[in-house]
Amino acid sequence: MSETLGFIGLGNMGVPIAANLLKAGFGLRVYNRTASKAAPLTAKGATVASSPADVAQPGGIVLTMLADDRALEEVCLSEQSFVERLGPGGVHISLSTISPVTARRLAEHHVKHKVIYVASPVFGRPEAAAAAKLWVCTSGPNGARKRAQPILAAIGQGIFDFGDDPGAANIVKLCGNFLVAASIETLAEMLTLAEKSGVSKKAVAEMIGKLSPLHSGYANQIAEQKFEPAGFRLTLGLKDVNLIVQTAAASMTPMPLASLLHDHYVSAVAKGRGELDWSAIALGVAEDAGLALRKAAG
Amino acid sequence: MSETLGFIGLGNMGVPIAANLLKAGFGLRVYNRTASKAAPLTAKGATVASSPADVAQPGGIVLTMLADDRALEEVCLSEQSFVERLGPGGVHISLSTISPVTARRLAEHHVKHKVIYVASPVFGRPEAAAAAKLWVCTSGPNGARKRAQPILAAIGQGIFDFGDDPGAANIVKLCGNFLVAASIETLAEMLTLAEKSGVSKKAVAEMIGKLSPLHSGYANQIAEQKFEPAGFRLTLGLKDVNLIVQTAAASMTPMPLASLLHDHYVSAVAKGRGELDWSAIALGVAEDAGLALRKAAG
Amino acid sequence: MSETLGFIGLGNMGVPIAANLLKAGFGLRVYNRTASKAAPLTAKGATVASSPADVAQPGGIVLTMLADDRALEEVCLSEQSFVERLGPGGVHISLSTISPVTARRLAEHHVKHKVIYVASPVFGRPEAAAAAKLWVCTSGPNGARKRAQPILAAIGQGIFDFGDDPGAANIVKLCGNFLVAASIETLAEMLTLAEKSGVSKKAVAEMIGKLSPLHSGYANQIAEQKFEPAGFRLTLGLKDVNLIVQTAAASMTPMPLASLLHDHYVSAVAKGRGELDWSAIALGVAEDAGLALRKAAG
Amino acid sequence: MSETLGFIGLGNMGVPIAANLLKAGFGLRVYNRTASKAAPLTAKGATVASSPADVAQPGGIVLTMLADDRALEEVCLSEQSFVERLGPGGVHISLSTISPVTARRLAEHHVKHKVIYVASPVFGRPEAAAAAKLWVCTSGPNGARKRAQPILAAIGQGIFDFGDDPGAANIVKLCGNFLVAASIETLAEMLTLAEKSGVSKKAVAEMIGKLSPLHSGYANQIAEQKFEPAGFRLTLGLKDVNLIVQTAAASMTPMPLASLLHDHYVSAVAKGRGELDWSAIALGVAEDAGLALRKAAG
Repeated sequence: MSETLGFIGLGNMGVPIAANLLKAGFGLRVYNRTASKAAPLTAKGATVASSPADVAQPGGIVLTMLADDRALEEVCLSEQSFVERLGPGGVHISLSTISPVTARRLAEHHVKHKVIYVASPVFGRPEAAAAAKLWVCTSGPNGARKRAQPILAAIGQGIFDFGDDPGAANIVKLCGNFLVAASIETLAEMLTLAEKSGVSKKAVAEMIGKLSPLHSGYANQIAEQKFEPAGFRLTLGLKDVNLIVQTAAASMTPMPLASLLHDHYVSAVAKGRGELDWSAIALGVAEDAGLALRKAAG
Repeated sequence: MSETLGFIGLGNMGVPIAANLLKAGFGLRVYNRTASKAAPLTAKGATVASSPADVAQPGGIVLTMLADDRALEEVCLSEQSFVERLGPGGVHISLSTISPVTARRLAEHHVKHKVIYVASPVFGRPEAAAAAKLWVCTSGPNGARKRAQPILAAIGQGIFDFGDDPGAANIVKLCGNFLVAASIETLAEMLTLAEKSGVSKKAVAEMIGKLSPLHSGYANQIAEQKFEPAGFRLTLGLKDVNLIVQTAAASMTPMPLASLLHDHYVSAVAKGRGELDWSAIALGVAEDAGLALRKAAG
Repeated sequence: MSETLGFIGLGNMGVPIAANLLKAGFGLRVYNRTASKAAPLTAKGATVASSPADVAQPGGIVLTMLADDRALEEVCLSEQSFVERLGPGGVHISLSTISPVTARRLAEHHVKHKVIYVASPVFGRPEAAAAAKLWVCTSGPNGARKRAQPILAAIGQGIFDFGDDPGAANIVKLCGNFLVAASIETLAEMLTLAEKSGVSKKAVAEMIGKLSPLHSGYANQIAEQKFEPAGFRLTLGLKDVNLIVQTAAASMTPMPLASLLHDHYVSAVAKGRGELDWSAIALGVAEDAGLALRKAAG
Repeated sequence: MSETLGFIGLGNMGVPIAANLLKAGFGLRVYNRTASKAAPLTAKGATVASSPADVAQPGGIVLTMLADDRALEEVCLSEQSFVERLGPGGVHISLSTISPVTARRLAEHHVKHKVIYVASPVFGRPEAAAAAKLWVCTSGPNGARKRAQPILAAIGQGIFDFGDDPGAANIVKLCGNFLVAASIETLAEMLTLAEKSGVSKKAVAEMIGKLSPLHSGYANQIAEQKFEPAGFRLTLGLKDVNLIVQTAAASMTPMPLASLLHDHYVSAVAKGRGELDWSAIALGVAEDAGLALRKAAG
């Protein structure tokens, strides 16, 4: 049996990722605020820790999969944190989508405890996580990055390596989310144009799906105005678009398309659509074209 | 041997398409303003007509693959055109990317001669045409559309059917080009953000290529600032974006992303980049971020 | 008494302008499709012509104040037009807001009849016209422009001279209308921000009115959501914004703010607001911010 | 002689404002980090305090005119600050352009010391301050606002009252700065259109100056590409546009024109133009249209 790892954060993504680590032969000590979430993992051999720090072994490895910058900071910067417990030789593999600024700040903090921060945000929804089909972006100091390699290989179908800067992988993750958000806007405008020109939205969506797998799911959702249940909540979309806009501002990069997306996400939340899927910005595009919306969608 | 078809327009796309028709067993009478372009086809059994009208047989089928609305109108609306020659029962399969307004106008014109206009614009570059791997959008009156089916099947890997409106297939073709133009803008902003944030553009482009085949080629071109030779000239990109904007205006559809693209294509042409590949709008995005450009790119 | 002038087009602007010419001592022969509109002018000494051509005297001056490019072209390019009648030495002073392309085309046409076209579009609403307080932009060949001077002086409070190019004055007129349309958008966003931040829109509008006379009227209209009766109909606003966008495209000038205005005017018309005042694009801005609109405004 | 006031912050704006207070008969105790700035005021009867706190008298009034949110927070939140010294019955009149969030936070902080915060940001450049021609926006609890009235009357030509919310006046100030920034963008696009269409920029700027006083100065600066010395530095313009964008985000208000301005200010700073006047965003508009710039302007 391989090394025993710590794992903090057992949400929709964390549970299937942890399950794949067990499957790959790693031992696991897990922690989650709501302890009951650990049940499917203990059944497969994981042990449950009583505190975040308790998952860590000196010089070992801890993975985190938490909701946002604040949640991650809380667990890292608290007194007697898992980082202190890891100490010299320890490695923290952070899977969350957070700001590159936070990533760099945490990396600096960890160094004081001789712990290395490795950023490893992932692309993919819970189903992809369950199938070990995530795509992983990784960056951080070389030695620790290599040590993380077999672990990341167990949870994804591919690893993209962005070198030593602990902020790099998060910048790339934001680039990827920008690609998806921009694709949603593109589809929304395109399908509205089709509808107003008297062409079947569904037929266009079907064609786009064949031409580009990336666009397929969203094209159908938008054509059918089916935004519930949310695969990715619109408020989280706004959070990510805000991270993109802030990261762009930090490097003095004008991104007019990101600004357009920002305005559309703000509008959608202002209209009360924060709990729908983030592709529901398409409703605003349709409204701006004077189209009546399907009742269920409003 | 199957029916003998007429074929007008032997450019980069027309020649490989015509070759695939011959390969599929159709007879061909071809016409091109510059007759020498026909040589590779006559070698395979095509006969050369002395005028556009001369490719047509009463009640037969003629395909056209011409540069733009004007070129197509010229050949259709001239005196003693191939349309007159086709006459009752004739079908005109138009493969060009043109305005839906022009398509509908030509359809009405053809009806006077009892000829049916079938719009069949195609997705794909010359290499895809040569490999019979085009995707074809088609629309027009039902009977003629069915008659066109085996012909279109011989030149593409799939046919998308958009019903009776002869303008519909062209609207859909514009939707597809909008998807690509929007993807270029997205990649340009994303890779500029990466560069300004100190992340390798090439590594990001490589990753995007794995996540989305549609974006792969453009991501690499933009990361390497390699815009020559042009796969699709920027002036043609502006022409298509103009068609999108006009089609949107005609149906009172606001498309803020299309407007953004329009401004970027206008800017690129104003800066003297009309002969580069249409992905060269990325140069303007980089300049707006204060980046110096590679010498070859200017 | 001064020279007798021809005058074609007796709408809301034409009548008060013509009245001021009479007041200044010019003789007038007037024409309007609906002849009854001439009544207030005949009472003051004008004579009524039976056709557009009939207002002209060989070598004389004719003013036109017509609705749009098409109306002006019709009256100029018809057979036996007033232009032919004017003939050598004649001058046509065109007061309408039209495309610079149309202006240049008409100028070339007139030259064939040895008539000079002087573009003289005006800023100001009917009340300003009545008070002889219009601002006039003028351009065209030097001699004719000088001859027009005392006539234009009689209808406005100031003349801006833009030289020999007959298209120049119309470009400048479009610049002015762009300034106003952009101001409306600015006010709409600003007052929406105030409202959503809990600050009184009316108080802000009042302040803006003191700081900038140009913004005063629109600021109040938008704060009160009072868009009827229309001072300038929204469909005409869209027409002018279209002219701006087309003129920009003709000279390869990217104008992102003009594109934004275009999208908002298209949206407003798509939502059925074409007959409201053009400041009613503010309703869309408010809707996009999730604000409920006043009932009367919808 | 009237009450003696405290005054902190003797920059380009602070000195002339303080001078007008002396002229109006108020006593003044002034403080500035660089003490030498106080010289012109001591000559007119002001006394110099040795620390920020030292300007305050229990229950009295202190005005501040500091560079930005941080400078103001430093002076307010430090230990033994002037706020503590003011104590019960004291009033702090804050003249700076800062975020409404900061204003509200300071107001809450002051209340703990029984001091009232009155926001009173001003419109106008140093020349207007010297001539006591500022326009003042004010908000804060009613009693204190009334007490501030004669003081504000001594420095401006008009006071706009926005009620009890201490954040309101700053929101309105941002609205006003948005109006100016949007006017600059409008002029930049308009004058670029004129130039590319072959019309004299200077003639258009002159006309605009007559039609709208607000636009006059900027129209000339842009037409002449004269951006030095900076009346208001471009980096400060970016700061204000950022405040607008953040305030809009806080209330979920999409402001596409503010986003456009943001992108243009970011671009100008990225191109190294931060020290020019904020109207220098016009250089980017001209570059995007392919225009070569005047040498001095680069």
